[in-house]
Amino acid sequence: MQEKEVTIYDLAERLNISATTVSRGLQDHPAINIKTKKRIFDLAAEMGYRSNKFASNLRRQKTNTIGVIVPRLNSLFMSSVLSGIERSVNNAGYNLIISQSFEKESKEKTNAKTMFNNRVDALIVSLSSDTADFSHFDPFLKKNIPIIFFDRTTEAMNSTTVVIDNFKAGYLATEHLITQGCREILHITGNIDRNVYADRLKGYKKALLDHQIDFREDLFISNDLSEGAMHDALIAHVIKRKQLPDGLFVTNDSAAAFALTILKGAGLRIPEDIAVVGFNNDLISRVTEPPITTINYPGNEMGERIARILIDHLDGDGNPDLNSQIVLNTDLIIRASSIRKKTYE
Amino acid sequence: MQEKEVTIYDLAERLNISATTVSRGLQDHPAINIKTKKRIFDLAAEMGYRSNKFASNLRRQKTNTIGVIVPRLNSLFMSSVLSGIERSVNNAGYNLIISQSFEKESKEKTNAKTMFNNRVDALIVSLSSDTADFSHFDPFLKKNIPIIFFDRTTEAMNSTTVVIDNFKAGYLATEHLITQGCREILHITGNIDRNVYADRLKGYKKALLDHQIDFREDLFISNDLSEGAMHDALIAHVIKRKQLPDGLFVTNDSAAAFALTILKGAGLRIPEDIAVVGFNNDLISRVTEPPITTINYPGNEMGERIARILIDHLDGDGNPDLNSQIVLNTDLIIRASSIRKKTYE
Repeated sequence: MQEKEVTIYDLAERLNISATTVSRGLQDHPAINIKTKKRIFDLAAEMGYRSNKFASNLRRQKTNTIGVIVPRLNSLFMSSVLSGIERSVNNAGYNLIISQSFEKESKEKTNAKTMFNNRVDALIVSLSSDTADFSHFDPFLKKNIPIIFFDRTTEAMNSTTVVIDNFKAGYLATEHLITQGCREILHITGNIDRNVYADRLKGYKKALLDHQIDFREDLFISNDLSEGAMHDALIAHVIKRKQLPDGLFVTNDSAAAFALTILKGAGLRIPEDIAVVGFNNDLISRVTEPPITTINYPGNEMGERIARILIDHLDGDGNPDLNSQIVLNTDLIIRASSIRKKTYE
Repeated sequence: MQEKEVTIYDLAERLNISATTVSRGLQDHPAINIKTKKRIFDLAAEMGYRSNKFASNLRRQKTNTIGVIVPRLNSLFMSSVLSGIERSVNNAGYNLIISQSFEKESKEKTNAKTMFNNRVDALIVSLSSDTADFSHFDPFLKKNIPIIFFDRTTEAMNSTTVVIDNFKAGYLATEHLITQGCREILHITGNIDRNVYADRLKGYKKALLDHQIDFREDLFISNDLSEGAMHDALIAHVIKRKQLPDGLFVTNDSAAAFALTILKGAGLRIPEDIAVVGFNNDLISRVTEPPITTINYPGNEMGERIARILIDHLDGDGNPDLNSQIVLNTDLIIRASSIRKKTYE
């Protein structure tokens, strides 16, 4: 049995004042004296009164909720971004509704529909690995509901995007391996239809080019970066090869840690035989032996940045032209997995 | 400029049929023929019509949202639990509103208030490290809004709890170290006001007792399990001691990985000098050298279990007596960080 909802009329009756006075008191109206306000608030708390947010939202057409669609929640990078978003939007009085696409376009479309029907005030998206069609975002644009894409973005939509400089990161990682004497650098990455992996690959190629090293198709592998995929890739392409690569650039630290463990298990020395660079600066990169050189990816900062842009927009003038491209800075963190020369040039 | 919301009257006008027919068609009423339904659905999609969920929820007093309050989002264990919850409740038509207490009772109280005012249909909580007063949950109980506690629970509330058998886990970890020849086992854990840490400590003590080993206060450390805290604890209590412990049981894998790195950095051999056991079976426990013996903590399964209990309750008869204690099974995963005898007994 659901208990009956306490209304301002119940409060008014118990306090023997008018409902208007109760309503004004709850809204901290200056015409109501402070003692009366205190009596109203105390009784409201005692009786479990809840402000009729629904009805008020219905009038304002605002729900104070922000929808989030991400590929998966269970990665440390994603957790850090969400943590950053949540902290900031909560402080501004918004709540998050969070859902996962599990890397599938079909689930992403379902999630978008749910968010739309829940009338979110804004949407934050990091695209699934296989999203190729973006029509599920059209209803939001039609209604001027702002969408921000982060990390995995698309140029197909005229929206605000928040990313790191993936080209620069790919360049830095590759150039570092070259300065450590590597010439045959294996690059293992995700689906290059996604900007993050495409841009890192461009950086990798440009660094090779700038150092007069030819790009070789046989030194490039695209997979889902899972433990099983790393195992398959490294056993087939590296350990069974006649000529081993002398460097390895993997675009995620967990995958780099798997790679390091697999290569060591096959009797290879890191960094002497193969120097390794990962991506993200996850916790995991610091506890392997040797610890892994990586790209710093400030997830928390990215989350806070996304939240700030969105809140400024929602609480501001509601200008729908929300289509700036934010690129956060990033840098290389050098650790023992890649240091083959005594002095780093 | 906010575009005007499309109503069933707009659809009715465009289709030249009555609003009642549109409404019935949208609800898939058998009295409306299938061709008309198709015309209604097609136009609804084209014009961006949204079912008036707010108004309907207002009538039903149901929001189809479930609130979640956790200490932090940025741990792999928590991400796995949330991933499990989210997947299950989404499939059942519910959405999650997620917030973090950042390990503070004060923030947990604020979050609870927000959830209450948002009229969540249910609340899922893992307590902050320092929560000692539970009155912020009273308003939910008063309204028969179900609360489920998981992982960090309390006996102070008469609610459903979902936990693993922390006593057994602590016992298994400690007994394993004893069978590997350890006699001075250092136990590093979190705030023992929380059930998870208290129960693991009880298991540790019982295993010692069953093997005629005295519990020693100087072999027990409670801290926040952060990298800095592990550093302080191990440098002060272990590395500077005259007599080193021969075993270490740490109640979280990240902290165990930090410990392993610190001890190795001080020239100690793992497991020969100190055998190490962690907790959670996080990814990180598999990529250290040596990999870390740990307790399997099925976060995803826990999340799915929580969701199922809640949905059965919400979509069922609404029986408010939701106060069962669910204990999930757990086991020890033995890896090289603790194997000191050739054959495991």
